[in-house]
Amino acid sequence: MNNNPHVAIVGASGAVGVEMIRTLERRNFPVGSLRLLASKRSAGKSLNFRGETLAIEELTPSSFEGVDIALFSAGGGISKEWGPEAVKAGAVVVDNSSAFRLDESVPLVVPEINAQDALSHQGIIANPNCTTAITLMALYPLHQAFGVERVFASTYQAVSGTGAQAIVELENQVRQLSQGEDVSSEVYPHQIAFNVLPHVDSFLPEGYTREEMKLENEGRKIMHHPSFRASVTCVRVPVYRAHSIAISAEFQQPVDLQRAQDILSRAPGLDVVDDPQQNQYPLPLLASGKDHCQVGRLRVDCALENGLCFWVAGDQLLKGAALNAVQIAELLV
Amino acid sequence: MNNNPHVAIVGASGAVGVEMIRTLERRNFPVGSLRLLASKRSAGKSLNFRGETLAIEELTPSSFEGVDIALFSAGGGISKEWGPEAVKAGAVVVDNSSAFRLDESVPLVVPEINAQDALSHQGIIANPNCTTAITLMALYPLHQAFGVERVFASTYQAVSGTGAQAIVELENQVRQLSQGEDVSSEVYPHQIAFNVLPHVDSFLPEGYTREEMKLENEGRKIMHHPSFRASVTCVRVPVYRAHSIAISAEFQQPVDLQRAQDILSRAPGLDVVDDPQQNQYPLPLLASGKDHCQVGRLRVDCALENGLCFWVAGDQLLKGAALNAVQIAELLV
Repeated sequence: MNNNPHVAIVGASGAVGVEMIRTLERRNFPVGSLRLLASKRSAGKSLNFRGETLAIEELTPSSFEGVDIALFSAGGGISKEWGPEAVKAGAVVVDNSSAFRLDESVPLVVPEINAQDALSHQGIIANPNCTTAITLMALYPLHQAFGVERVFASTYQAVSGTGAQAIVELENQVRQLSQGEDVSSEVYPHQIAFNVLPHVDSFLPEGYTREEMKLENEGRKIMHHPSFRASVTCVRVPVYRAHSIAISAEFQQPVDLQRAQDILSRAPGLDVVDDPQQNQYPLPLLASGKDHCQVGRLRVDCALENGLCFWVAGDQLLKGAALNAVQIAELLV
Repeated sequence: MNNNPHVAIVGASGAVGVEMIRTLERRNFPVGSLRLLASKRSAGKSLNFRGETLAIEELTPSSFEGVDIALFSAGGGISKEWGPEAVKAGAVVVDNSSAFRLDESVPLVVPEINAQDALSHQGIIANPNCTTAITLMALYPLHQAFGVERVFASTYQAVSGTGAQAIVELENQVRQLSQGEDVSSEVYPHQIAFNVLPHVDSFLPEGYTREEMKLENEGRKIMHHPSFRASVTCVRVPVYRAHSIAISAEFQQPVDLQRAQDILSRAPGLDVVDDPQQNQYPLPLLASGKDHCQVGRLRVDCALENGLCFWVAGDQLLKGAALNAVQIAELLV
C-alpha cells in the first residue's frame, strides 16, 4: 500500500460520507489524493477537504483508476455492484454497508477488537453495523475477562442512522406540529417526532428485524465467538445523533463489578461515564460528535447468575460508521 | 359502600388527577358527589365535571368528611400524610403513589389480574407503577399459560409520567432549540428534547433505580409470584404520552407462538397490534388516550430456551394510573 494512498469515498454526500471526509482530516490520515463519488443526483455538488473544494463526481467504471482505498457508504446495492469493480481496479474497499459483512472471505473489523483480521483481506473489508460496533466496544472487553454467553439488548437509535433525509423529516415534523400543520412522513412509516418506532430495517420471517439480528451475527464474527447469542429490540427514537443501547449480559464466569469497571476504564475507545448519584451516565447528546463510545449504569444484573446490566452510547456516524472505516484504512497504511 | 359514593380526588390539578376526572365521566362511574383537592397552590382553580364547574379546594383535616372513596395522586409524601387521615374519616383510599404498594396490609391491584385482592383491603388499596401495570397487562396472561420466570426489559417512558411540568419542559426545550436559544432544564437533570435519559426515579445502592425495581417488586405481589425476577433499564424519551416497553421473557414451559398470540388476543384490556409487514405494531402515539394497552412484535426469543420477545405500549396516565385507579374504585361499588 502506498504510504500516501489515493482515497475515494463512495456516497460522499451522505451523512456518513461527510463524516468520512471530516474524519480523514481530523486524524491526519495521509491522503495522497481524495476523490468524492456519488450518484448522478449529487454529482456536481462540492465539499471541502483540507481547505480545498472538491467536486463530487458521478460514480462510473473509471472512477477507481489509481485509487488505493475506497470507502463505501452508499447502501448495499451500490457496494455489491461497485465494490468488486473497485477491487479489480486495484483498490482495497472498506465497505460500510451490510453487503459483505457475513461473507466468509471478507473480514469484519472493529480495530480495537480484531484488527488482525483486516490484514487477511482479499480486497474488501467490511465495517460492522453501527449498533453492533457501539455495543461491542463495551461488551468485548467484558467478554475477554468473563466470557459472554448471551445478551438481551434494546436500542435507542438516532434518525441520522437512517440518513440525512431522516434528519430533515424529524425537523419538518417538529415544525409542522409547532405550527398546527398535518405531519408528513416519507422516510419512516409513522411519525417519528415525539414517538418511538420499534422498527429498524426490514422484518425477517422469525419476527426479528434484520437490524436486530446483526448484533448476534456480526458479534459472533468480530469476537470469534460462534455460540454468542443476542436477543435485541431495535427502536428508532427522536434523537438526531448517537445511538444508545441498554444491555443485560450473561457471562460464563462470575462477574465482579469493581473488576468490570476497571476493565472498561482501560478499554480503548471507550469512556466510563458512571456516577449516577451526580446524574452522570452516557447520553446520546453528550456522545454526539465524539470518537469514544461511553458506558455507564454498570450494575450486577438482578435476573442473571453471572450478569451485568449496562448502558452504552456512541456516535453511530463516527464509531458506528465513518470513524471505524477510517480506522480500518489506517490499519492498511 | 354507598351505591353512589362521594368521591374525592387528591392532586386533582395534576396530569393524573385531570385524567381521573375524565375517566370517572367516561366510564359513568356512579359518583354521588365529587370533591377536588390539591395543595394551596392549586386551590381556587376550577375544573369541569359532567358540565359543572368544581372549585379545587385546599387539602385540610376536614377534607374527607363524608367521602366514601378518595383517589390519591399527589406523590408519596401526601399519601403517607393524608391517606390514613382519609381512612380514619371513613373513606377507602385508592393510592396512585408508591407509598403503600409493598405494604403487606395493602392490596396492590390491577383489576384484570388480581381484582379479588382489592376486596381484602383495610382502607387503602394501592395502584401499581405505570410501567409495571402496562407490562403486566401482556405478561400476566402469558404467565398463566407458560409460567414466567424472569424478564429483561427496557422502557421508553413519556415525559407526562413525570407530571405536567415535564410536558412544559419538553415543549419549551423544543421551542428554545428552534429559536437558537439556550436550553433550560429544571425538571430533568439534562435536556430531554432530542435526547434520552437512562434515569427515572432515584438510584439505589445496587445501581438500579427505584423505578427499575418496581416491575420485580410489584410484579411479584400482583401476580402472587414471589420468585419472579426482572432486570429493567428505565429510560425517559422525548414522547409526550404513553410508555413503551421492550421485553424478553423466560418461561418455565415451552412457548408456542401461535398459542401466545391467541392468549393475548383474548386478554382483557389488551389489543394485539402485530402485523409488522404492514408496519403495524404498538406505538406510543397510537396508544395515547386509549384505555387498552397494545402488544406486538411478538416473536420466539432467540436467546432463551422458553422465551418470548415482545413490545408493549400503553397510556401511562390511563392504564398506568387514572384508569386503573377508577377500575379499582369500580370494584368497591
